Amino acid sequence: MSQDIWTKIDEKISENLDYWLEQLGRLCAQPSVSAQNLGIAECADLVATMLREQGFGAEVMPSGGAPIVYGEGDGRSDKTLLFYLHYDVQPPEPLDLWESPPFELTRRGDKFYARGVSDDKGHIIARLAALAAVRDVLGELPVNVKFVIEGEEEVGSVHMPDFVEKHKERLAADACIWEFGGVDFAEQPTQSLGMRGICYVELSVQTANQDAHSGLSGSIFPNAAWRLVWALNTLKDQEERILIPGFYDDVLPPSDRDLELLNELPDESDNIKKMYGLVGFLKGMTGGLDWKRAAVFEPTCTICGLDSGYQGPGSKTVLPAKASAKVDFRLVPDQKPADILAKLRAHLDAHGFNDVQITYHGGGRPAKVDPDDPFVQIAVETAVSVYGQHPTIEPIIGGSGPNYPFIHVLGLPLVSAGIGYPGGQVHAPNENIRLQDLVNGIRHTARIVERYGRT
Amino acid sequence: MSQDIWTKIDEKISENLDYWLEQLGRLCAQPSVSAQNLGIAECADLVATMLREQGFGAEVMPSGGAPIVYGEGDGRSDKTLLFYLHYDVQPPEPLDLWESPPFELTRRGDKFYARGVSDDKGHIIARLAALAAVRDVLGELPVNVKFVIEGEEEVGSVHMPDFVEKHKERLAADACIWEFGGVDFAEQPTQSLGMRGICYVELSVQTANQDAHSGLSGSIFPNAAWRLVWALNTLKDQEERILIPGFYDDVLPPSDRDLELLNELPDESDNIKKMYGLVGFLKGMTGGLDWKRAAVFEPTCTICGLDSGYQGPGSKTVLPAKASAKVDFRLVPDQKPADILAKLRAHLDAHGFNDVQITYHGGGRPAKVDPDDPFVQIAVETAVSVYGQHPTIEPIIGGSGPNYPFIHVLGLPLVSAGIGYPGGQVHAPNENIRLQDLVNGIRHTARIVERYGRT
Repeated sequence: MSQDIWTKIDEKISENLDYWLEQLGRLCAQPSVSAQNLGIAECADLVATMLREQGFGAEVMPSGGAPIVYGEGDGRSDKTLLFYLHYDVQPPEPLDLWESPPFELTRRGDKFYARGVSDDKGHIIARLAALAAVRDVLGELPVNVKFVIEGEEEVGSVHMPDFVEKHKERLAADACIWEFGGVDFAEQPTQSLGMRGICYVELSVQTANQDAHSGLSGSIFPNAAWRLVWALNTLKDQEERILIPGFYDDVLPPSDRDLELLNELPDESDNIKKMYGLVGFLKGMTGGLDWKRAAVFEPTCTICGLDSGYQGPGSKTVLPAKASAKVDFRLVPDQKPADILAKLRAHLDAHGFNDVQITYHGGGRPAKVDPDDPFVQIAVETAVSVYGQHPTIEPIIGGSGPNYPFIHVLGLPLVSAGIGYPGGQVHAPNENIRLQDLVNGIRHTARIVERYGRT
Repeated sequence: MSQDIWTKIDEKISENLDYWLEQLGRLCAQPSVSAQNLGIAECADLVATMLREQGFGAEVMPSGGAPIVYGEGDGRSDKTLLFYLHYDVQPPEPLDLWESPPFELTRRGDKFYARGVSDDKGHIIARLAALAAVRDVLGELPVNVKFVIEGEEEVGSVHMPDFVEKHKERLAADACIWEFGGVDFAEQPTQSLGMRGICYVELSVQTANQDAHSGLSGSIFPNAAWRLVWALNTLKDQEERILIPGFYDDVLPPSDRDLELLNELPDESDNIKKMYGLVGFLKGMTGGLDWKRAAVFEPTCTICGLDSGYQGPGSKTVLPAKASAKVDFRLVPDQKPADILAKLRAHLDAHGFNDVQITYHGGGRPAKVDPDDPFVQIAVETAVSVYGQHPTIEPIIGGSGPNYPFIHVLGLPLVSAGIGYPGGQVHAPNENIRLQDLVNGIRHTARIVERYGRT
C-alpha cells in the first residue's frame, strides 16, 4: 500500500520540480552571509514568505542575533515532526574561484551552482517540496509540522540553545529531521545520528597603535605576529596533541555499538585524499577504523585563518601592530564549549599570553541519538525504498550543529535526509548539488513524513 | 665667505620653493609601488624627464627588474659627487587609514602628505632644488654630479649590487649623498654612517588543493596554517634568540668608536614608546646604551605578515589549504643574505619542514663608513651651519639599503642629508613631511655640494 502512495507522491514531486527549482533560485539569489551580516533580515523575511505561500503559519522571531523563522502546520495525527534548517550561508570568498556568480543559481549539466544551494537552502526547498507533494496526494498532512529555520548556523548557532530553552513549549515535538543528508562517495545514502560540538574563537594581539618600519623596530618592539605564533604554538604540538590542561578531561570513548557502526561504514579515505589532493593524512593514518574513529571521535584544534601585517605581493618591511587567528575546537561527548573556553584562557595566562585576547564567536555541545530509536528505523527503511540500498549509519559526524538542545532539551530523536553529495563543495567556491540528489532528498523526506503519520 | 654664498643660495631656495613644491606634487601623483609593480616604468620616465628639465643627462637603464634612472652633469672641479635615491614607494595599504588620497600631495598646516613624500620622492626633489640653487648662484656646478635613482629600494634593491658591479666605471665617483636624512625627536639633525643588511623571504605551505570544511577535516587533514605556525616557532624563541644554527656566526661586535658614538646619541626610547603606544620594549629594555645597541647592532627575525584561510568578520569553519608568512631578517656586519638564506633552508629541513617553501624577495649586505672620513666632516660642519647645532652621528642605523656596493664596490664615503622627521609616518598611512624640514634638507644638500667643490 505504501508503495502506491509513494509512487503517487514521487509523481507529484516530478510534476512540480521546475516550480521548486525556481523557488531554489529565488532563495539562493538572496545573499545571507551570517559572518558578514549580509542580507540576513531580508532572507529571514523571504523564508517566512515562502512558508506562508505553502500555507504554513510563519513568524520571524528575535533570537538575540539573526532572527529565527518559526513555522507550523497542522496534520491528521497527534504526532509532531520538527524540521531544523538554516537560511544563512558561508561567506562566498574567495570570489575569483567561482565559475559563476555565487548568488545566482546556475545550471551546468546536471548540477546547480550557488552559495547555499546545498548548505542549506536546497534542504529548505526539499522539505517544502516534500510536504507539498505529500499534502497534494493525501489531501492533508499526516502529521503536525514545525519549522525552526535559523540564520546563525554558519557562525556557531550562538543563540539557538537559549532560543530552544525559552520556547520549549512552543517547539514541543516528537521527532526531528535535521538540516542535511545525502549520499557518500559510493552513492550510498547516509544517516547521521550525532554531531561534534564546537567552540570557535578568535585570538588577537595588539602590541602598538600602528605598524612600524621593521628596520626601526625589529630588535626592540614587541611584534604582534610573533606573539600570536608563540601563543598558538602552545596550543597543539606537531603530533596533534592539544596541550591545554584538562582539554581531554570530559572526552568519552566511543561505545562498542559506535565502533560497530563505524566499522560498517565504507572507508572513504582514498576518495577524500584524492578529492583534496592530500599527500597523506595526519599521523601517517591510511584509512581503516583508526582513521574513521579519529575523524569523528577525536576533538580538534584547527586554525581556520591567520591575519597580520602585509599580505600583498612582494615585500613590505613592516612590523605589525596587530595579529589575529580564527581557531575552531571540535568537541566530542561530553566536552562543553564554556569549559574549553575557560581552560583556553587559563592556559594562555599560564604561558604569559595575557596579551592575547579571546573573542568567542559561538559554540555548541556535542550530541548523539540512540541508533536503535524507532524514528531512526523509519529514516533507514524509507532510505532503502528511495535509494535501493541500506544507508550507512554514522554514530556521529565530524561537523557541528546545534543538535544538543533538540536532542537533550526537547528530547527528540533526530535523523538526516537530504540532497548532498561529497562533490558539493560545501563551504568552498562552486558549491553545488546534483539534480538527482535533490529529487531523492525530496522523496526521502516525503516518505519519512508519510510513514511517520502511520505510527 | 662661505656664509655669503650660502645666504645667496638660501635666498634662491626660498625664491623657487613654490616651483619645487609643484614638482614634488607632480612626482607624488605618479604611483610607483614596486611591491605591486604599479606605475614603475612611468615613474622612471618621469624622473628622467625631470632630470633633463634641470639640464642633466638622463638615461632609463635596465636593471633586470625595475629600471634605474642614471643621470649626470658636469661641474667645475674634478671631484664627482654621486646621489643615490629611489623613486619607488611602499604600498599605500591600508587605504582606509589615509586622511587624504595617498597619491595626491595634500597640504594640511605646515605638513605635506602623500605616499613617498618623504621616502623618497621629497629627497629627489631636495637634491634637484639644491643643485639648481647652487648652479644659479655660482653660475655652474662646483663638482660633477651623478645620479643613481632606483625603483626597487622598497623591495630589497634586488638588482642594485649587480648593477653597480656591471657599471663600476660609469658610476665612478668620489663621495656619495645617501637617500635620506633629517632631524630626530629633539629636532637635532642626524648623520647616519651605515645600515643593517636585509634578507627578506616569504615562507609558504600548501597542504591540499582547496580549503576544506573543518568539521570534516580537522582531525585528519594536515593544516597549512598549523604547519606554518610550527615552522615559524622554530625560528625564534620568546627571548628573541634566533634559533637557526650558525645565524650569529658572522656577527661582529660594535667597535669602541661605535659604542662611543652610540653613547653620545640622544635616548629616544621614551619618544618612540609614546609615538607607537608601546607598553614596553622587548626583553624589559628601558632605553640607554643597551637599548641603542640592540636597536641597530643586533640582527632580527621579524614577521612582517601572516596570511591564511578566513580573515573576515565572525567565523568561517574552514581548514586552510595554504598559509604564508613574510619574514625579514635584518643583518649586521658581516652577515650575508645568501648565507642566511642557505642556513634557513637547512634549518627548516632539519626540523622536518621541507614542505615549507622559501621565496626570496631580496636582500643586501650591511655596510658602514669610517666616522672620521673628511667627507663625513663636511656633512657635519654644513649641518651645524644649517641647523645651528651639531648633528647626532649614528654609526649604523636599523634600516637597510643597498649601501654595501656604494661603500665597498665603488669605495665611496657616504653621508646622509635630508628632509625627514620622526613623525613622518614613513611606510605607514599618512606619510608626511614638514615644510621647514624640506627647506633645511635642500639647504644642507646645497651646502655640502658647494663646500665639497672647495676641497
